[in-house]
Amino acid sequence: MNEIVRAKLSQAVQLLQEYDLPLWIVQFARETHENPQPVQHLAVGTTITWPAAFIVTATGESIAIVGTGDVANVEGVGAYGDVRGYVQDIGPVLRECIAHAAPERIGVSFSRNDDSADNITHGMYVILHDLLSETPYAGRLVPADAVLGALRARKLPVEIARIQYAAEATLDLFTQIESSLRLGITEREIAQSVHNAVASRGWGLAWDRGYDPTVHIGARSAFGHVGPSETALQHGDLVHVDLGVKIEGYCSDLQRTWYVPTPDEAEAPESVTRPFRVLLRSLEAGFDALRPGVAGWTVDDVARRVLTDAGYDHPAFSLGHQLGQSTHDGGTLLGPRWSRYGDRPLGRVEEGHIYTLEFGLPTSAGWLGVEEDVLVTANGGEYLVPPQRELRCVRL
Amino acid sequence: MNEIVRAKLSQAVQLLQEYDLPLWIVQFARETHENPQPVQHLAVGTTITWPAAFIVTATGESIAIVGTGDVANVEGVGAYGDVRGYVQDIGPVLRECIAHAAPERIGVSFSRNDDSADNITHGMYVILHDLLSETPYAGRLVPADAVLGALRARKLPVEIARIQYAAEATLDLFTQIESSLRLGITEREIAQSVHNAVASRGWGLAWDRGYDPTVHIGARSAFGHVGPSETALQHGDLVHVDLGVKIEGYCSDLQRTWYVPTPDEAEAPESVTRPFRVLLRSLEAGFDALRPGVAGWTVDDVARRVLTDAGYDHPAFSLGHQLGQSTHDGGTLLGPRWSRYGDRPLGRVEEGHIYTLEFGLPTSAGWLGVEEDVLVTANGGEYLVPPQRELRCVRL
Repeated sequence: MNEIVRAKLSQAVQLLQEYDLPLWIVQFARETHENPQPVQHLAVGTTITWPAAFIVTATGESIAIVGTGDVANVEGVGAYGDVRGYVQDIGPVLRECIAHAAPERIGVSFSRNDDSADNITHGMYVILHDLLSETPYAGRLVPADAVLGALRARKLPVEIARIQYAAEATLDLFTQIESSLRLGITEREIAQSVHNAVASRGWGLAWDRGYDPTVHIGARSAFGHVGPSETALQHGDLVHVDLGVKIEGYCSDLQRTWYVPTPDEAEAPESVTRPFRVLLRSLEAGFDALRPGVAGWTVDDVARRVLTDAGYDHPAFSLGHQLGQSTHDGGTLLGPRWSRYGDRPLGRVEEGHIYTLEFGLPTSAGWLGVEEDVLVTANGGEYLVPPQRELRCVRL
Repeated sequence: MNEIVRAKLSQAVQLLQEYDLPLWIVQFARETHENPQPVQHLAVGTTITWPAAFIVTATGESIAIVGTGDVANVEGVGAYGDVRGYVQDIGPVLRECIAHAAPERIGVSFSRNDDSADNITHGMYVILHDLLSETPYAGRLVPADAVLGALRARKLPVEIARIQYAAEATLDLFTQIESSLRLGITEREIAQSVHNAVASRGWGLAWDRGYDPTVHIGARSAFGHVGPSETALQHGDLVHVDLGVKIEGYCSDLQRTWYVPTPDEAEAPESVTRPFRVLLRSLEAGFDALRPGVAGWTVDDVARRVLTDAGYDHPAFSLGHQLGQSTHDGGTLLGPRWSRYGDRPLGRVEEGHIYTLEFGLPTSAGWLGVEEDVLVTANGGEYLVPPQRELRCVRL
């Protein structure tokens, strides 16, 4: 991952110029193995034990101020040009470094709205403020969430390639799931077989293994972020799987749904195929609305209205989120303007962003869910892997 | 882990009474899979996606306010008696819940001094403050680090048993390392064999796999939190390993050192055995000083003076830290009163705490380090596993 950290730090310098922020304290933290933060995989590259400050300036300097015992591992990443060790107190070195740059504004990695850009604890923020209290700089601390959000969101070619690879790996797992279906198989067994396959390939899961994958069999299954149950597959059930893997630091997040017809059904019943057609139309409407410059909420709104116009309830969730080192990668959200989402739905879609597009509908045969991963190009969306176009019937 | 979370929440109610804190917002967070916090394994038990508040009161109530999609997994933990789902905005439910309790003070999980008790991001703190800004409660937010620190530090019997189990497992790994030593083996090979053994048993590492284990061979090896190198074992080298494993959520942290004599040496030379004797004396002095009621820094001071009295430099590190769900478990530190340690060395040692005792000395044959894991009882310290009493010579 070190080459990604180095490339992202170069990108950070450009973003500081674009957003007119002279100096950014990328991370100010301690014991980051115990309290990991999303920014460290993106722009630091290692954990540290003692209080440490990682700083980038718009003029291209990068400085790490770390406890002496952390110097070797930070130097090992090779991302920060100037690594300064201290023994007793980080304050003097930090103040000297900031005074030397004399910035008009100091970006700090916190955010009200974007959890992925909210990367400093309140205790460390208080300490930072106190360390600068006798200087002109305590009053110049500002949130750096615009820069950090853009840094996460604007994917480099190497990042796009990794996410695509993870998505392709996920499609392989879906193929394996489909071929493993048999009457009586339980949600838990499907999840276990995915865990085994992921572990045997040396991959990781993209989110909490308690509900990655989420598996729903039939209408008897519970809804939401809930672990797979003992519910067993019967004729006439839908099988829905929401699955993401993490490979070389980057995540996929896809959903697929299958139908298991009864012996006397030639195909899936209208009670399933009708909502499936509406669902695909909704996601396609979102896909066509996804282009650089639009606000996130408008894309959600276009797709959402396809469902409500067809008589379905408002989905309680967003159409899509960004995808990257985290499954929920923060930044602009393709979601409704609800308080719980802050102002992220007001953010703009940009070239180089990668989004999920996902909705679901309840049916009498169970949950029907589809999710795709889409790159935004200058010309609009581009599916990272082939989308689900038909409800596959698995005859058992 | 769910039974531990339930037991710790009962303990939390007692601590709120002891510290006279009527209401504690244990966690106020979002997307905790992407941004995990130490408190969640201790007193929440699951990750959540949408902004959520986990609340405990001194009267014994426990309330979780979570997005509807997180209700099922929070209920599955079975720790919070009252789980309330919301769809659009956490504010109304949170304000209603706090107004009902009408607390004089509201504890929030942040801390200047104790990283393990610093469990809220600055962005979430700002949001919490804003959500309460039209109420009397915004001005009543106080750090809950005394309660959270005590909750982590005062181990329940089940927690002590798990840490002891992890320490015993670590001794087994040391035995395996000792029997694997051969001329030419590299630091990296030793680390790899530990990783293989840990993975094959289904255990985890206690800290970053880049330097767990830390392995030093001879005086040619780099110092600090640095990954194992290609340095290869020769006659006349010390082999030093710092290793911790995590089993069922709890960590060990131990160091052992071996000496590989040259063919013409009957035993280790005085240049190694003298510092080894001083080192053991230092750790034993710390062990004897470790008892309920003393301040952490005094224990460090006693052990440190043994080294400096014998003519060695002041160690640049603490004598010991607490051990639990994290390797560096926060709270009272057996360390010097240096700014980088905040006021943690001023904290008191209590019955039920578990500490490491660890120092090291440089020699002409390499780094000499020993670390033990010690439970504090009413009568003083109790080694969790047999301590290193002699420098073992491995003849190759």
